[in-house]
Amino acid sequence: MAAMQAVPLDKASRLLNHGPTVLVGSAHAGRANVMAAAWAMPLDFTPPKVAVVIDKATLTRELVEASGVLSICVPCVGQADLTRAVGGESGKDHPDKLQRCGVSCEFGPHTGCPLVHGAIAWMECRVLPATAHVAGPHDLILAEVVSAWADERVFSGGRWHFESAPEELRSLHHVAGGMFYAVGSPIKPVRE
Amino acid sequence: MAAMQAVPLDKASRLLNHGPTVLVGSAHAGRANVMAAAWAMPLDFTPPKVAVVIDKATLTRELVEASGVLSICVPCVGQADLTRAVGGESGKDHPDKLQRCGVSCEFGPHTGCPLVHGAIAWMECRVLPATAHVAGPHDLILAEVVSAWADERVFSGGRWHFESAPEELRSLHHVAGGMFYAVGSPIKPVRE
Repeated sequence: MAAMQAVPLDKASRLLNHGPTVLVGSAHAGRANVMAAAWAMPLDFTPPKVAVVIDKATLTRELVEASGVLSICVPCVGQADLTRAVGGESGKDHPDKLQRCGVSCEFGPHTGCPLVHGAIAWMECRVLPATAHVAGPHDLILAEVVSAWADERVFSGGRWHFESAPEELRSLHHVAGGMFYAVGSPIKPVRE
Repeated sequence: MAAMQAVPLDKASRLLNHGPTVLVGSAHAGRANVMAAAWAMPLDFTPPKVAVVIDKATLTRELVEASGVLSICVPCVGQADLTRAVGGESGKDHPDKLQRCGVSCEFGPHTGCPLVHGAIAWMECRVLPATAHVAGPHDLILAEVVSAWADERVFSGGRWHFESAPEELRSLHHVAGGMFYAVGSPIKPVRE
């Protein structure tokens, strides 16, 4: 079982710095959802902020707009099928989507949004005011990270260490059509 | 030598979909610059759009704001030192930064921005109007992709194929402090 450790907020941007595909969690008025998103990135270091594209047609977007909060989880190779599943159907069509897709989760203490068990990082976020200008034309949600955790087997001392953990704990990077690459080998400075 | 082939615009988002670190190129009034940026992602499919964070303190930001255009190149493992070099010093301090960092380039036909030789993908982009709302508070630049090319050894048929090419052509994913991961192994659907 993963041991999720708190990540200091000034290191939270590191969780997305290498460009992994993420799971976006949302909750409002007794409904909760999780979807996959490849278009997410850090936006600032301190306080940590993130940017993520969430289509208007999704239940996630509806819940995020209603609540003003969201979660971002980083799924791993062992969750590739789960990531495809939550990316492939809508919570609008299937109110029981989380059960259907095999998502086990807990709910964040600050936002009430789903934190997916088995993911290698979790962040709870609050939507930023500037989102009002870019959500309409570009489906772009800007948010501040208010809490973060990561699996200590792959993230410690403020950075990822995938090379010393099992392959199934590596992050996923979506290419197209349900095909991902796992993150690969470390490329260290030659000149050091 | 790389053979850069045109990428259809409806497939251009694929070039950034897996979250690589990029090189941002800029040019205005006889000055040109290239910097590294880990915070870049697709923003739309058709027409293709991208979002990238460019700090106010950089020469790149100054040139992009003056010209309204930029380029985004995807560097590869063989360019890790070049990527660190252009990420480590400012064109404001060193007017000869491109030569100092060993950057060989040509200039895009639509924007005049640098397209770095040896990179595995190139995009020319025009800044979008909504940038006016998010560049000030969040250093976020939104842009439409107007032309794209990729190295046919690693990108063909509208998607990346890193597994069939030399390791040095894989994309870079910045972790922290000049340490990258290369993109790794393909993770295909088990259920197919």
